[in-house]
Amino acid sequence: MTFPLAKRLAAECLGTGLLVTTVVGSGIMGERLAGGNVALALLGNTLPTGAILVVLILALGPISGAHFNPAVSLVMSLRKDHPWREFFPYAGAQIIGGCIGTLVAHGMFELPLFELAVKARTGPAQWFAEFVATFGLIVTILAVSRFKSEAIPVAVGLYITAAYWFTASTSFSNPAVTIARALTNSFSGIAPADVPMFIVAQLVGALAGLGVMSWFFAESGVAKGLTLERT
Amino acid sequence: MTFPLAKRLAAECLGTGLLVTTVVGSGIMGERLAGGNVALALLGNTLPTGAILVVLILALGPISGAHFNPAVSLVMSLRKDHPWREFFPYAGAQIIGGCIGTLVAHGMFELPLFELAVKARTGPAQWFAEFVATFGLIVTILAVSRFKSEAIPVAVGLYITAAYWFTASTSFSNPAVTIARALTNSFSGIAPADVPMFIVAQLVGALAGLGVMSWFFAESGVAKGLTLERT
Amino acid sequence: MTFPLAKRLAAECLGTGLLVTTVVGSGIMGERLAGGNVALALLGNTLPTGAILVVLILALGPISGAHFNPAVSLVMSLRKDHPWREFFPYAGAQIIGGCIGTLVAHGMFELPLFELAVKARTGPAQWFAEFVATFGLIVTILAVSRFKSEAIPVAVGLYITAAYWFTASTSFSNPAVTIARALTNSFSGIAPADVPMFIVAQLVGALAGLGVMSWFFAESGVAKGLTLERT
Amino acid sequence: MTFPLAKRLAAECLGTGLLVTTVVGSGIMGERLAGGNVALALLGNTLPTGAILVVLILALGPISGAHFNPAVSLVMSLRKDHPWREFFPYAGAQIIGGCIGTLVAHGMFELPLFELAVKARTGPAQWFAEFVATFGLIVTILAVSRFKSEAIPVAVGLYITAAYWFTASTSFSNPAVTIARALTNSFSGIAPADVPMFIVAQLVGALAGLGVMSWFFAESGVAKGLTLERT
Repeated sequence: MTFPLAKRLAAECLGTGLLVTTVVGSGIMGERLAGGNVALALLGNTLPTGAILVVLILALGPISGAHFNPAVSLVMSLRKDHPWREFFPYAGAQIIGGCIGTLVAHGMFELPLFELAVKARTGPAQWFAEFVATFGLIVTILAVSRFKSEAIPVAVGLYITAAYWFTASTSFSNPAVTIARALTNSFSGIAPADVPMFIVAQLVGALAGLGVMSWFFAESGVAKGLTLERT
Repeated sequence: MTFPLAKRLAAECLGTGLLVTTVVGSGIMGERLAGGNVALALLGNTLPTGAILVVLILALGPISGAHFNPAVSLVMSLRKDHPWREFFPYAGAQIIGGCIGTLVAHGMFELPLFELAVKARTGPAQWFAEFVATFGLIVTILAVSRFKSEAIPVAVGLYITAAYWFTASTSFSNPAVTIARALTNSFSGIAPADVPMFIVAQLVGALAGLGVMSWFFAESGVAKGLTLERT
Repeated sequence: MTFPLAKRLAAECLGTGLLVTTVVGSGIMGERLAGGNVALALLGNTLPTGAILVVLILALGPISGAHFNPAVSLVMSLRKDHPWREFFPYAGAQIIGGCIGTLVAHGMFELPLFELAVKARTGPAQWFAEFVATFGLIVTILAVSRFKSEAIPVAVGLYITAAYWFTASTSFSNPAVTIARALTNSFSGIAPADVPMFIVAQLVGALAGLGVMSWFFAESGVAKGLTLERT
Repeated sequence: MTFPLAKRLAAECLGTGLLVTTVVGSGIMGERLAGGNVALALLGNTLPTGAILVVLILALGPISGAHFNPAVSLVMSLRKDHPWREFFPYAGAQIIGGCIGTLVAHGMFELPLFELAVKARTGPAQWFAEFVATFGLIVTILAVSRFKSEAIPVAVGLYITAAYWFTASTSFSNPAVTIARALTNSFSGIAPADVPMFIVAQLVGALAGLGVMSWFFAESGVAKGLTLERT
């Protein structure tokens, strides 16, 4: 079945929104309850994020492809698995959805609806972490989509669960989510001035992941066949 | 296979009962052991709840549909996926089962069998949280039921795992469970006076979720085909 | 494929052994590392136990049925899904394997190989907890085996994950494991004098679960067809 | 589909690298955030490791078999499931990948790229733990590969999740990972002098696992048919 563009954009908006609501909301909850133990707060931030990704990709993947991430949409467009003319609409829907997601989390937790983060996340090590995190995410998506597309929801959820902990930056790895997280001055926030370099690092990591997987799949006698759960 | 109404009601009663036993029991266990760290207590409350939901929907879904939730039964009735004449029997069985579930938890943990919660859970932010939580639950159930019904147990379990943390109210999102939790003055309790507005928020959220998913599915050329694991 | 009895008994012995090694070993590890926070120790005991159950049932279920539990073997024998003449050999292999599992855990953690627990676990509330835990386990196994037998490993692993927290006794729900845990004076131990009543409660719970599920399945026009992953 | 050796070695290198990046990186993250609570640090080390194993085996298993472990390659070669002439190339790619993985983790966390561990991990109990851990890993891989090869990613991820806690050594169970962990003086490090005996214990455990499973499968009238996700 194919859904019209309006519904697909709505699904990207809704999905990215619920993802950011989960990231920001569980970050607030974790920090409030953890009594100063950051590992416990991060655990309370990680498990919900991984879990909701599985749910959202299962639920909305068949509608829009469940990118929820401009870096993923970019890679899909470069691979010609997704039409270029839809790249900016998709990215726009993801960013709008993400920002609404922050507002929703703030509404639930009685925080000011609009605020800006002050938490600095910058420097070469953080950028390298975002590069690695997004590289791994794209490798995961491209490889699992090809070999076992029905496992994509679980693979992405578990990848992010791991990446929250193995990267020094807690793995934003998503430009839309990064922008949305600049709008919260809570556990998961990032100072607006630090957003651009995070996005650059994420896009470079995504392209590196695409390059590596293109090499793996080149001339291997297998039809392209990437589907990312859209059937 | 179709089970007679009596057995389906028994399954709803049993399933909602074990769900509430898990919610209330693991709340007591978590609070007793966590040494005052609420994040740890909530973690000890979250993981069992998500896990038992997967188990109960796997085990009892083929018998009764595994609603365990009057908001779900309402949505199913509105969608004509479940007969209206069974709505009140289902909701009644769920509420009775939930209350027995609280008693069972109290029996295991040597608490007074009958008590009332004093923990206040009220105010617009909490109601908004219940609205969001139940909206997301219904979106999850309707979308996953349609696209990949065999993933419903995992999707619901993971959704609630996430919602415990991303909502300020720890996501009751279930009128029967809310009523049953008014009967325990422990970690998971809710003062009886605060129950009605929680239920209102849950039902409004459920209807919003139904509305959004009806729009997604309207005129998309796909037969209705929602089955929720009942085959 | 059918394996000869000697190999099936070896699989029951090996599986119950690795299960007990996990329960006892992760209990020791959790207690040593948790700095006195019992919730954290129980979390470090719960996750490995649930995880290893999924693994062991996946790995050994096709050989022996992966009972690893005399209460399960009893129910299977009563249902005529497993031959009565093999009940005592199965239960014996499980008990022997469990006791070896405790020794292996002690060997890894430099504890005396042979010791007896002094931790009291007794009283009506604890017995009621074991009744509930084993009742739920049997309901899970019988229902999921019937409706979706390939989900049995995940269902049992998640059930025990939940039951560790929702029961006041941390859900032993297994006579062989209970006996093996009398041989360790660590986190997961149980004083030998308290073992018999735990086993009685477990067996009564198992029979109650069998009774309830037999009622659900009676005259519902479905062939018996319980297979528990043995194909 | 069959991939050429160069790509298979690249997949082993990439996969072992991301595995070690996760083990070392999440160890650093956990230790930094846990405020001295080692159980919490180990939890923050365990969940990402289990999760990334599922992801990497899903993603790269169809390319290279996803051994990521010389002990696994050895067993596969002994079983003639993998050609002997590829054993050393595979082991070399795994070791190189693992060491790069440590460098990547250090780069992200602003540690010196090259360092050596000082943490002692030695003595009969630790060696016995590595023996048990690797024995269980090989039993898991051989049994699940035979009976339900599509479950290998989840089975291995859950096995290691459990083994981190039930073994006194936190289950290295992988010679390439052990060597790579000698290159970090952080939570997951092991003093270089202690590496050889760990590897010996791992290889003996692997051979024991192979021996036990060969007995189970001998003359049972079933074709060999081990495939480990390579189709």
